[in-house]
Amino acid sequence: MNQVNSKIMDISGFDFNSYISKKIILINKKLGKFIESAQDSTILAKAMNYSLLSGGKRIRPVLCIAAYEAVAEKENDVLPAACALEMIHAYSLIHDDLPAMDNDILRRGKPTCHVAFSEATAILAGDALLTLAFQILSSVQINNNDAAKWLNVINLISKAAGYMGMIEGQMRDINYENRCISLKELEYMHSLKTGALIGAAVEAGAILGNGSSVQINQLKIYAKSIGLAFQITDDILNVTGDPAETGKTTGTDKNRNKNTYPALLGVTGSEKHAKKLIREALHAIETFDNKADPLRAIALYIIERKK
Amino acid sequence: MNQVNSKIMDISGFDFNSYISKKIILINKKLGKFIESAQDSTILAKAMNYSLLSGGKRIRPVLCIAAYEAVAEKENDVLPAACALEMIHAYSLIHDDLPAMDNDILRRGKPTCHVAFSEATAILAGDALLTLAFQILSSVQINNNDAAKWLNVINLISKAAGYMGMIEGQMRDINYENRCISLKELEYMHSLKTGALIGAAVEAGAILGNGSSVQINQLKIYAKSIGLAFQITDDILNVTGDPAETGKTTGTDKNRNKNTYPALLGVTGSEKHAKKLIREALHAIETFDNKADPLRAIALYIIERKK
Repeated sequence: MNQVNSKIMDISGFDFNSYISKKIILINKKLGKFIESAQDSTILAKAMNYSLLSGGKRIRPVLCIAAYEAVAEKENDVLPAACALEMIHAYSLIHDDLPAMDNDILRRGKPTCHVAFSEATAILAGDALLTLAFQILSSVQINNNDAAKWLNVINLISKAAGYMGMIEGQMRDINYENRCISLKELEYMHSLKTGALIGAAVEAGAILGNGSSVQINQLKIYAKSIGLAFQITDDILNVTGDPAETGKTTGTDKNRNKNTYPALLGVTGSEKHAKKLIREALHAIETFDNKADPLRAIALYIIERKK
Repeated sequence: MNQVNSKIMDISGFDFNSYISKKIILINKKLGKFIESAQDSTILAKAMNYSLLSGGKRIRPVLCIAAYEAVAEKENDVLPAACALEMIHAYSLIHDDLPAMDNDILRRGKPTCHVAFSEATAILAGDALLTLAFQILSSVQINNNDAAKWLNVINLISKAAGYMGMIEGQMRDINYENRCISLKELEYMHSLKTGALIGAAVEAGAILGNGSSVQINQLKIYAKSIGLAFQITDDILNVTGDPAETGKTTGTDKNRNKNTYPALLGVTGSEKHAKKLIREALHAIETFDNKADPLRAIALYIIERKK
């Protein structure tokens, strides 16, 4: 990591742990309120809350807030967009874990939604979280000028989450099982499955923070690089991770003959590739002032994380 | 039906069949374009198109357009909202048909999505149609004033389709199987499962057509009554319908010990109840001029239909 760190000496004074802890508390508090405010006694709401509030790195909402802070001049409420992104992520995990998909029984150290409730409940809880995300994105009471901005944010998030983005990525992931694919195919699949929503998180934050088109473009390059590095690290952790820390079983990708970076490049090669991507991400935002330090720290965290 | 017909003698000159045929052609053409415009060669897009373009009554989009026309003074593009509603309906059918839910193998006379493709593909195609609906609702290029209106429409549709609306209705429907429930519980379940989205279709049309708050309120009463009548007729058709016309197997509700209107009120009692609701619907819009004739005709069609 020294090679990467030397490039960002200027953030050595930035307390990343404190920053991320505060943001996660803020996000979790807000997430808890969205479903609590309605019928939290229904089985459906219980299943939604179970998956939504069961921990998780909250990387998408934190990225959304950090991108917003990197460009924003005045106060605005970016939190609904951040929470909506986490809901979309949570729904995708519930559906990906289903027996007809990855058939996973453990997520974040707890039984997956369909195991804890039922398959039908898990399908519906996923559907409901996806729908609630759009309800939240359209709930913001603002002036007409802001309405167009929120409409823009809904559009870019729905595109990223949809059949030309995240969902197509999952479709390819399933279809690629037990089949050899090229590095190019693997990267494209991940740019859809993980990259698209991470990109939308950063772009939504930048748009809500009234970033300039130049800033937004640079942030999109940043997001593309960290999105891919995030997936590479996920793949590495599936080989080298400690289940006690990751909350997931190790070696599942190999057992399923999944196409992964370690399988194609080896663990060392994958680590090298991830570092290169993080350098590119930091380079993309090098002209940003210290308000972008959280984004710089997140880029490093993404490849250094143990879970 | 004479009792109902006598109340709306004034629409005898209205050619309902021609009206509905034209609207269905318009809707299907537009629906076909939404997915065609992207990667229609992917399995995911094929599965989405398979379920979306496999016929269907298109009652929600037609209601949305008719409600729009009943109040609109000037031209506007209501079609994206109409198509988004049909996509949400199509997704809900794909997921309801899944083995973990109703386990239906036939829909509109064709194999259901998970039978024609796979369970994983069907889950993802449903997710993708739901997401695409919000992409379309947020794609409309308009002035800032209209942006707030579309944000409002996204909000009401997401609420109706979400965990306090349609999805909770489906959850209850599943949980009520093999359990006796009261007429009140049955009506509430249907007001969520079918009524909420029908209500949103009418309300969205009225809002986009710049209807007054009085008009919107009357249209909401209209929608509530026809929504329930629609479900009652569905239940009746499951007992008395001709599979060749309905495209569905008859008697499935009884075999599954489903709670239905015929089971609680008998077929004749159910028909009587549906007629009463249609009278209430027509009464709610009696002060509307002849631009509301399509809405009047749809109300009658709902209980007279054979499929």
